[in-house]
Amino acid sequence: MSLPNRIEIREEGPREGFQFEKGEIPTARKLELIHALAETGLKRIQTVSFVDPRRVPGMADAEAVCAALKPPPGVAFGALWLNAKGFLRALVAPNLTLDGSVSVSASEVFGKRNQNRDREQDLAAAAALMALYAEHRIPFARATIMAAFGCNFQGEVPVSAVLDRIAAILSLAGGAGLERPVISLADTMAWATPLTIQRVVGAVRDKWPELEISLHLHDTRGMAMVNAWEGLRMGVARFDAAIAGLGGCPFAKHEGAAGNLCTEDLALLCAECGVGTGLDLDRLIAAGRLAEAVVGHSLPGRVKQGGRLTARG
Amino acid sequence: MSLPNRIEIREEGPREGFQFEKGEIPTARKLELIHALAETGLKRIQTVSFVDPRRVPGMADAEAVCAALKPPPGVAFGALWLNAKGFLRALVAPNLTLDGSVSVSASEVFGKRNQNRDREQDLAAAAALMALYAEHRIPFARATIMAAFGCNFQGEVPVSAVLDRIAAILSLAGGAGLERPVISLADTMAWATPLTIQRVVGAVRDKWPELEISLHLHDTRGMAMVNAWEGLRMGVARFDAAIAGLGGCPFAKHEGAAGNLCTEDLALLCAECGVGTGLDLDRLIAAGRLAEAVVGHSLPGRVKQGGRLTARG
Repeated sequence: MSLPNRIEIREEGPREGFQFEKGEIPTARKLELIHALAETGLKRIQTVSFVDPRRVPGMADAEAVCAALKPPPGVAFGALWLNAKGFLRALVAPNLTLDGSVSVSASEVFGKRNQNRDREQDLAAAAALMALYAEHRIPFARATIMAAFGCNFQGEVPVSAVLDRIAAILSLAGGAGLERPVISLADTMAWATPLTIQRVVGAVRDKWPELEISLHLHDTRGMAMVNAWEGLRMGVARFDAAIAGLGGCPFAKHEGAAGNLCTEDLALLCAECGVGTGLDLDRLIAAGRLAEAVVGHSLPGRVKQGGRLTARG
Repeated sequence: MSLPNRIEIREEGPREGFQFEKGEIPTARKLELIHALAETGLKRIQTVSFVDPRRVPGMADAEAVCAALKPPPGVAFGALWLNAKGFLRALVAPNLTLDGSVSVSASEVFGKRNQNRDREQDLAAAAALMALYAEHRIPFARATIMAAFGCNFQGEVPVSAVLDRIAAILSLAGGAGLERPVISLADTMAWATPLTIQRVVGAVRDKWPELEISLHLHDTRGMAMVNAWEGLRMGVARFDAAIAGLGGCPFAKHEGAAGNLCTEDLALLCAECGVGTGLDLDRLIAAGRLAEAVVGHSLPGRVKQGGRLTARG
């Protein structure tokens, strides 16, 4: 076991959460949560997605959110985009810190269903974005490998497919004169177990010992925390997480259905296991409760109800 | 890592769940869930508590439940009691398999608050029950060490207190001519983390390598599954769990608050990691959904929503 001394948690709650909520959330309430999160010690908060508002109505106010953002010193407000059109919207939006990112699917079946792209088209789309990052001098910060641990449509995803996509991205980056990005291994459909975390992270490490790995985990099947722990045991030091466990779950039939790995629950685990996060757990818990108020229903995170480990005498 | 080849999951849902539910649940509905659970492969299902119906109204129908139980071959329906009065009720109830059990608190502060007993009184109460088991030739099957990983009122609980209570129980058992019980380490107030699981389980193992250890975990702070995984990694082969994550949480302010380690979620983890449980995951998922229908609100287990790992393509 080689727990890292310190990890970086990238907050995905506003972006992952608001895009899946059914009811309309006022822009001012989104901003209230984002700014509360910015006071918890989180250094990177994903705030909006620049995607088609007809497909994702919850992100139709992305520009309005950005216009009103007030990033405190040392806090980066980020955004997601999936193509050039989205990137060019992000480029002119104020108050954002732009990190160049690309996403490719390790499962070709999922890639076809999700974006109607096969492997070649997926990589071509990534290459097009990388060319834009080079042109606009945006750092190439992150490459996400979607469905890295399994796929609802394909079933098991071979580790070789994950390695293939990473190799292709690194080759494209080298060709474009870009730096090597953090590799985000995304458990898009919640197929990961501790054993597949071991297998996939281990294989990536074996091949590229110097690459920085990040984990993006969903709790759809109750495995987010145990998978995060297995990552921590292996020394993974970057995690995406969402306040209160916000995040979409296409299987959700009722309130409280599972979303992303929960930020404050992960922060509690780290605090109790000597892994530094730089986060203020009390403020995170308050932000988790605020998130429930903003979306108007209960959210799955536990610590916001259960509380931190302090004797109540 | 030494994952066990096979584990035994003791189902606590009916007992843990129904005693904390606020609304009255008809006896027939309780029986429906218990009998559904009996078709999932579970071999030991805790069905009722023989406790004071004025304090626990949800268990006032314990005798009526027992009268209508139909245990299938190979399935033991069990019960909980905390004192001689409760045990004598269980002794005359039909259709139960009685396993002698005692509970003592590793936290003296909790013992005082919960049962108004200090260490000596706690052990004297256990000794009184053990004398009854000897007299009635009931096997002494289980000793639960409550608050074994921490306490909301005392804070940290030293490992030495856990070892002290186990040593006292074993000494009493030897004196009464009883067998050595399974030691159930109970995370009564959800203080455990993987590191305290390592520490406490490791210390008990070091002192008594031959003792069988069981873990009883609550998810109040989101750590139930990660703690179960750490137990599995250490070879622990007995777990309590509750269908759909049923179980009480004194902090719960709304539906979906955390209860016990969820049976079907643990079963999924085991199935995917090569640990045998003998359980039918599809039937467990159906039982988890039934549990929600019976209590009339959503319950925290994930797999009943997220589904097992099968390609849908």
